[in-house]
Amino acid sequence: MKIGIYGYGNLGRGVECATLTHKDAELVGVFTRRSPESVKTALGTPVYAAADVEKFKDKIDVLILCGGSATDLPEATPELSKNFNVVDSFDTHAKIPEHFARVDSVAREAGHTALISAGWDPGLFSIARLYASAALPDGSDYTFWGKGISQGHSDAIRRVPGVLDARQYTVPIEAALSAVRDGETPTLTTADKHRRECYVVLKEGADADAVREAIVNMPNYFADYETTVNFISMDELQKNHSKMPHGGMVIRNGRTGVDGEHSHTVEFGLRLDSNPEFTASVLVAYARAVVKMNSRGDFGCKTVFDVAPVDLSVFSGEELRKRML
Amino acid sequence: MKIGIYGYGNLGRGVECATLTHKDAELVGVFTRRSPESVKTALGTPVYAAADVEKFKDKIDVLILCGGSATDLPEATPELSKNFNVVDSFDTHAKIPEHFARVDSVAREAGHTALISAGWDPGLFSIARLYASAALPDGSDYTFWGKGISQGHSDAIRRVPGVLDARQYTVPIEAALSAVRDGETPTLTTADKHRRECYVVLKEGADADAVREAIVNMPNYFADYETTVNFISMDELQKNHSKMPHGGMVIRNGRTGVDGEHSHTVEFGLRLDSNPEFTASVLVAYARAVVKMNSRGDFGCKTVFDVAPVDLSVFSGEELRKRML
Repeated sequence: MKIGIYGYGNLGRGVECATLTHKDAELVGVFTRRSPESVKTALGTPVYAAADVEKFKDKIDVLILCGGSATDLPEATPELSKNFNVVDSFDTHAKIPEHFARVDSVAREAGHTALISAGWDPGLFSIARLYASAALPDGSDYTFWGKGISQGHSDAIRRVPGVLDARQYTVPIEAALSAVRDGETPTLTTADKHRRECYVVLKEGADADAVREAIVNMPNYFADYETTVNFISMDELQKNHSKMPHGGMVIRNGRTGVDGEHSHTVEFGLRLDSNPEFTASVLVAYARAVVKMNSRGDFGCKTVFDVAPVDLSVFSGEELRKRML
Repeated sequence: MKIGIYGYGNLGRGVECATLTHKDAELVGVFTRRSPESVKTALGTPVYAAADVEKFKDKIDVLILCGGSATDLPEATPELSKNFNVVDSFDTHAKIPEHFARVDSVAREAGHTALISAGWDPGLFSIARLYASAALPDGSDYTFWGKGISQGHSDAIRRVPGVLDARQYTVPIEAALSAVRDGETPTLTTADKHRRECYVVLKEGADADAVREAIVNMPNYFADYETTVNFISMDELQKNHSKMPHGGMVIRNGRTGVDGEHSHTVEFGLRLDSNPEFTASVLVAYARAVVKMNSRGDFGCKTVFDVAPVDLSVFSGEELRKRML
């Protein structure tokens, strides 16, 4: 399959690298809204202006959109679905239905297949929730995130006056996780399940106590959480906190039997060294599915729920039944 | 959906109970090759002779086959696919391609949909292996089973002269599991990953040492494994070892990045109080998918790889995108 990458940040770079292991993926080019000469790709993939992408409509089987969910994808995914099969990682959960509807009408009319919200959450975690709830209709679901860097929370800290740079780790609360793994079904808020660890570099002369107070009392982001703030040097931040690890677990506890006398736990977990590279690799697997679905005439907007596992694989159904079932 | 249960052992009883939580499932009847009067169902579902099942062909949307893989299903699944949409839990991994081919030709010709090898392994574990390998093409897979009762190994012990009854637990070896969870990619045989715990009731006058030797040296089943044999009373067996717990984990460690510099771990795990009840509940979810696929004209033999997650759910795609994505 011939792939184009639209947008070249951490995720776009991850898609480029993912083609090293997804052997059926051939990279046609990277498309950027920056000046193409200013973008240096990890593997030397040619870079073109985003404005020229339409010229490649017959040279690309699927375009992987690597922009952000806040402003890029709501515009780009429907727009590009006119000329391409696309995959995006739109992750604003509450706005997925709206995004779906806009993309669906364009893709359907153009005879393209557009898969939105791929990655791990939404994505593999969503699938884990669905399989577990289908297997255990009478049960309770728990999603824990971390330990990992939250870009949104790190950005929120960076906006506090006196902060030069910051990283925020979302960390599952061990006691809550253990209880759920033991089959208990407590009612837990996001704050009951997670604590927030902040690593902050102060600007010269900034008041550490004031910064700490501003962080821990920030509504929505930190006020409801157990939050720890550690002040460190820029050197230390760059040395120890420059990676982008993440992960988490989806756990469902459910009951079966005449009187619900038997308890079962289903758990799906990820431990990722690099959130963008793993997400990118999932996007490439879904790009493969999009090409297969489109070739069967399955047009319109899709999510990970609509994709049969076989379509993610380079192997045929026959090979998979022999090797993996 | 209107469901028939063909075969009424632990699994058939599990399917009957699963309809308590799968609210869209309506039980038409249980079909048995025993005398119908001799079968008492858990929920009072009517029992009919297996020979009469054809009379119900217009009253049943999907027949769930609850026989064994050794002799029942190789005959029953193709035969019943002539008149019914069916789901089975055929679990002889090596014979799946052959079973698939036989069922496929019958079901396709009859315009039925037949899903084979559903459950958790083959089944949810197979799906976990496929998703993980699609997300991380460069990696290594590990399946650990247990802690749980292996019926085959328990039966093998019962065939040893001097044994009155027995239960065998397959138990993951903690050191191997920890290494894999830590991201290591060792080469491990089944025996490297599992030990075998046997609980044996002797016949009166039996020679315990001879029985132990016969067990631990039994080829294929025990000879290659770390095996412990505990002699207990029938009372103790019935009190402490009469349940059918099982479970296990599928773990994949893979790498991404320009030089494979980032490591990731994907883990899917189950802890089941009752293996047959959980398996049965998965079969009912796949029965739902079979009915949906058949109504779309998607005929022939299918496996869990061919079923899009959305088809397992009672909820619509729209509801799922809103609630679970």
